[in-house]
Amino acid sequence: MCKDLMAQIGRNAKAAKSILAQASSEQKNHALLVAAKSLRDRSTEIMAANAIDMAEGTAKGLGTAILDRLLLTPERIEGVAKAVEDIAQLPDPVGTVIKSWTRQNGLRISRVRVPFGVIGIIYESRPNVTADAGAICLKSGNTCILRGGSDSVNSSRAIHTSMVDGLKAAGLPEACIQLIPTQDRDAVGILLTMTDTVDIIIPRGGKSLVARVQAEARVPVLAHLDGICHVYVHDKADPLKALNIAVDAKMRRTGICGAMETLLIDLNYPREAALEILDALAEKGCELRGDEAIRAIYPAAKAATEEDWRTEYLDAILSVRLVDGVDQAVNHIETYGSHHTDAIVTEDMAAAEAFLRQVDSAIVLHNASTQFADGGEFGFGAEIGIATGKLHARGPVAVEELTTYKSIIHGTGQTRAAPYRAAKR
Amino acid sequence: MCKDLMAQIGRNAKAAKSILAQASSEQKNHALLVAAKSLRDRSTEIMAANAIDMAEGTAKGLGTAILDRLLLTPERIEGVAKAVEDIAQLPDPVGTVIKSWTRQNGLRISRVRVPFGVIGIIYESRPNVTADAGAICLKSGNTCILRGGSDSVNSSRAIHTSMVDGLKAAGLPEACIQLIPTQDRDAVGILLTMTDTVDIIIPRGGKSLVARVQAEARVPVLAHLDGICHVYVHDKADPLKALNIAVDAKMRRTGICGAMETLLIDLNYPREAALEILDALAEKGCELRGDEAIRAIYPAAKAATEEDWRTEYLDAILSVRLVDGVDQAVNHIETYGSHHTDAIVTEDMAAAEAFLRQVDSAIVLHNASTQFADGGEFGFGAEIGIATGKLHARGPVAVEELTTYKSIIHGTGQTRAAPYRAAKR
Repeated sequence: MCKDLMAQIGRNAKAAKSILAQASSEQKNHALLVAAKSLRDRSTEIMAANAIDMAEGTAKGLGTAILDRLLLTPERIEGVAKAVEDIAQLPDPVGTVIKSWTRQNGLRISRVRVPFGVIGIIYESRPNVTADAGAICLKSGNTCILRGGSDSVNSSRAIHTSMVDGLKAAGLPEACIQLIPTQDRDAVGILLTMTDTVDIIIPRGGKSLVARVQAEARVPVLAHLDGICHVYVHDKADPLKALNIAVDAKMRRTGICGAMETLLIDLNYPREAALEILDALAEKGCELRGDEAIRAIYPAAKAATEEDWRTEYLDAILSVRLVDGVDQAVNHIETYGSHHTDAIVTEDMAAAEAFLRQVDSAIVLHNASTQFADGGEFGFGAEIGIATGKLHARGPVAVEELTTYKSIIHGTGQTRAAPYRAAKR
Repeated sequence: MCKDLMAQIGRNAKAAKSILAQASSEQKNHALLVAAKSLRDRSTEIMAANAIDMAEGTAKGLGTAILDRLLLTPERIEGVAKAVEDIAQLPDPVGTVIKSWTRQNGLRISRVRVPFGVIGIIYESRPNVTADAGAICLKSGNTCILRGGSDSVNSSRAIHTSMVDGLKAAGLPEACIQLIPTQDRDAVGILLTMTDTVDIIIPRGGKSLVARVQAEARVPVLAHLDGICHVYVHDKADPLKALNIAVDAKMRRTGICGAMETLLIDLNYPREAALEILDALAEKGCELRGDEAIRAIYPAAKAATEEDWRTEYLDAILSVRLVDGVDQAVNHIETYGSHHTDAIVTEDMAAAEAFLRQVDSAIVLHNASTQFADGGEFGFGAEIGIATGKLHARGPVAVEELTTYKSIIHGTGQTRAAPYRAAKR
């Protein structure tokens, strides 16, 4: 039964995708603006649906963090509506000519951006993803199949109604944004293997979700599993920059994928300045776990184990290590990192360039906080996540990254071999 | 034992990849030029090795076509050497800034091309792939692990020796181009799942090889399974262009992935001109398989079955169908095609644009032969194949497509939250 349902959803998506791929920017934007208005108009409904999820979540004993992610307030709904409007304002990538050139034989070749077609998005407790993801896919001309978490099922359904309001008003098929109506876990397994229908899968959620998707998917996945981000304070670092960047990278928000998890301090970095960074972090409430060299100079730090270097705490905990120069820093990052986002703080340009070149991560920074690893901070507007894979999109995945390209060739009758019949003169 | 061997090959590749990724264009080109010279110098050796493969192949009863693909002659070896030199002449994509921009907060962001790292290439009887693929990977800064076919094992090993000569001369690790030294089939299975080491897999060979790779790989694959390419002769087609394009698309070379497999003729295209195309194809030795409408006007055609529309003949056989307008042509292509390369012949620009927009294939052409689906014809120099997947590279996969990118961000101490400590004035 779940199989039949998913097959029907697949057929709906396929039927809608060619219409959506040809839709004008105006039509897509109209759908988004009406959806935003509908989110505001239906605010009471959406909160009523959310109240059911919150009550069930409380009864189920969900943790405070999950309940907070689940909660919708008038302000949060306004935020969701505003985010959808912001997506309408972004440039439409579809039809953009990436490059074009003319061959000696007169063939004109253009690489033109086109939508993928059908995107599957699997997420957990945040109901706002229903609007965000739906809107980003719509803007990029992609039909989407959304699978929300069981905790937010009522909230997601209510938000989805508003997205459909937008589609209807713009004369677009409702199936441009489908929400899988069942919580049957088999639906996810089927979605992950619908290679004939689904072009890419994007998981948004915790590590166990991403790991399951990466393990089971036969459809290509854009995702990151871990964000084990490093800041390396080089011996030529400016102490004020190092202090501010380290504190921001760890403590601005500890639960995001761009948060620093390991601080590498050069052993030639002035001792006093190093201690100042550790004191500031401790003062902000961060637990420090150091290697022996760190504990020798900062005995308040706990002992870091091998496991610490591989851990994404997503919390006010930091592993700290003394390293001997850029090479050892790079080596640590390549050994333990997750190829997400890593930064060096230094005034020595040669050291900076060596680090930026050698660290094989999606995002590498010089003298800036790792918390800039965010599509919005890149100027991309809304992002659907950060990808650490190397294929297609690396780093923030925003509207443009949700497109592929085709090669369009205009000729005047060209053949590769001599023509079968020559033109008459 | 095969497992240990592959693990060692993986470690070698990983150790070599960071060195190769940092190598200068000069160093890589030097390696390629010395390898080309070595191929010429070792020509006798290579032919001797090839003679063993040819003898074994003949004894095994390999078909003429396979034996021809396997055969190396002085001219062919010269061609292989020349191809390697040509790759040295191509622009180096590594380090190219794809785009860069500055944010209001002063962060300078650049998207810079970098190699993938490690590429696995699995191929069949053509021993020249050992040089071609090795050279393309080297040029793009990628370490490669090559797995040649069992029929060409001696030839591939001899060619590989020349590639290693080039690497040594340029001071690059020999492991930049590794040839798996065993024909144990398990080696392929292991290579396809070395997700920690191998970044992408490229299969080069027949459908059964590609299908196996796509089914078993856990590493991302760049490939195409089928090239079911169409030419649609619109009712407003210029008859001379239609005739020449149809004959070229089918008959220039029938065994390549860009060869036309199905001809769609608009039912409003002048009857006489349509018959002229079919006569020309038949005269060139092509077997025609038509639908009922075609057979009504061209009784010499055999009856096409449903299976014919889904078949990549790679031979002098063509399925032919009468269609009613652009929409029906697009619909046929979307139903039966393989999203590889499809062409329309017409003088009606609106019809051409509708076709080019709606056909969801890697390459779409207007008034040109589908046999232009080739990296060389795109001006990319050597290509390693055509990809029909939508992720990363769509269409010809050449040197540039074997790179990914990283985002490099230069700051001056930026933090996302307010700095922990303000600068002194």
